[in-house]
Amino acid sequence: MTYDKDNIFAKILRGEMPAVKVYEDDQTLAFMDVMPQSPGHVLVIPKTEAEDLFDLELKAGTAVLRTSQRVAQVVQEVFQADGIMINQFNGPAAGQTVFHYHVHIVPRYEDVPLRRHSGDMEDIAVLEEQAAKIRQALGES
Amino acid sequence: MTYDKDNIFAKILRGEMPAVKVYEDDQTLAFMDVMPQSPGHVLVIPKTEAEDLFDLELKAGTAVLRTSQRVAQVVQEVFQADGIMINQFNGPAAGQTVFHYHVHIVPRYEDVPLRRHSGDMEDIAVLEEQAAKIRQALGES
Repeated sequence: MTYDKDNIFAKILRGEMPAVKVYEDDQTLAFMDVMPQSPGHVLVIPKTEAEDLFDLELKAGTAVLRTSQRVAQVVQEVFQADGIMINQFNGPAAGQTVFHYHVHIVPRYEDVPLRRHSGDMEDIAVLEEQAAKIRQALGES
Repeated sequence: MTYDKDNIFAKILRGEMPAVKVYEDDQTLAFMDVMPQSPGHVLVIPKTEAEDLFDLELKAGTAVLRTSQRVAQVVQEVFQADGIMINQFNGPAAGQTVFHYHVHIVPRYEDVPLRRHSGDMEDIAVLEEQAAKIRQALGES
């Protein structure tokens, strides 16, 4: 499969689609998943074109890992999560729905089941409020 | 929490516990999950002490990512998987059961539900046979 430059995340990177951003640097972007599996569900993507893990340059992968570590730490603190699940799906059979490499940071809470992947759309105002808390904590960290 | 030097993966790294290995280099080790969620389920760990993502040096994380890319590619080919799920759990609430950072490479097959995480033990002979195929394909890749 060839990288599709019109996937949603490519459009977000080009500013052609909105996203509720929490962090950005020269190599990565982190933003709220609009269909969160739990409160505080964030996605981290590289700015380079990569469809999936097999297509990803190690330098871009390392940058995503670094951003994921930082954002996951803050998400855990801000949302007082009991644990953090990191998921990354390759291929539709594995749950991939957008064909630009992305890492899911999913907070887990004791005795609270996850909502399903690609389930219900969250209210943007709720995501904006959560993102503001994450951005503030990142600024202080 | 402090890194527990007596966790199972630390013992595997020290050669005090057996593992069905598929790949090893100076920074990482990959071996079959003894409670696979699907055929071909492999774990990749760093050789440095790290309890979880928050505790992981970026250099070790990069090495795990590089090994994961290589092993996942081969696992997908050898087992003719339709997709590959990468999971990494931090904290018991997120499903972490061994407190040494590890990445799950879980092959996904169309219309085949996953077995549960930390479920039934697989026959070691089956894992040995699968590992031999992975090792052979890695040698040829």
